[in-house]
Amino acid sequence: MDAETIAGLNDYEIKLAKLKGEFVWHTHPETDELFVVVSGRLTIRLREEDREGDVVLGPGELYVVPRGVEHCPVAEEETAVMLVEPVGTLNTGDAGGPMTRAAEPL
Amino acid sequence: MDAETIAGLNDYEIKLAKLKGEFVWHTHPETDELFVVVSGRLTIRLREEDREGDVVLGPGELYVVPRGVEHCPVAEEETAVMLVEPVGTLNTGDAGGPMTRAAEPL
Repeated sequence: MDAETIAGLNDYEIKLAKLKGEFVWHTHPETDELFVVVSGRLTIRLREEDREGDVVLGPGELYVVPRGVEHCPVAEEETAVMLVEPVGTLNTGDAGGPMTRAAEPL
Repeated sequence: MDAETIAGLNDYEIKLAKLKGEFVWHTHPETDELFVVVSGRLTIRLREEDREGDVVLGPGELYVVPRGVEHCPVAEEETAVMLVEPVGTLNTGDAGGPMTRAAEPL
């Protein structure tokens, strides 16, 4: 997932990300995360204790993944997404691994 | 400006607002404010000390009004806007007056 920080909002940042394919299952234990689809189609797979399900978003649709909920974004076609989250939020949350991007200073 | 809180993001809220006409000049001394235009066309008039100018946004475009900067949203046609700001942010900021909407609990 390529992502670029395009603006700051207090101690939050607004990012644009392009995604194609399956990202990685991860959790942000400390924060909610806002996804707004700009173009394409995004499936956010979610699992939490005994619940599991998908949220499918088209352009102009949004979803907030609550803190602590494990999720995996998936896009079959190239999809552009706007994210809003606190500065320093790691893209792979608690999962780490090769897809982890360094947090960018504003 | 009719506005509805559609989601929460930690201690922020995401609102959808419809605007037609001129809002009121106001300032949020404590917070930045994110505007994303969903449909229509939004002009954000800005003034700050010796600077003055307009930002004009079409669908999918966004702007963050920095804290402390006096601004006045204006829409010639009916315009739908997504706002992201801390819970309890008053729509008229420090200006008050008849357009002030009560803060809505999440």
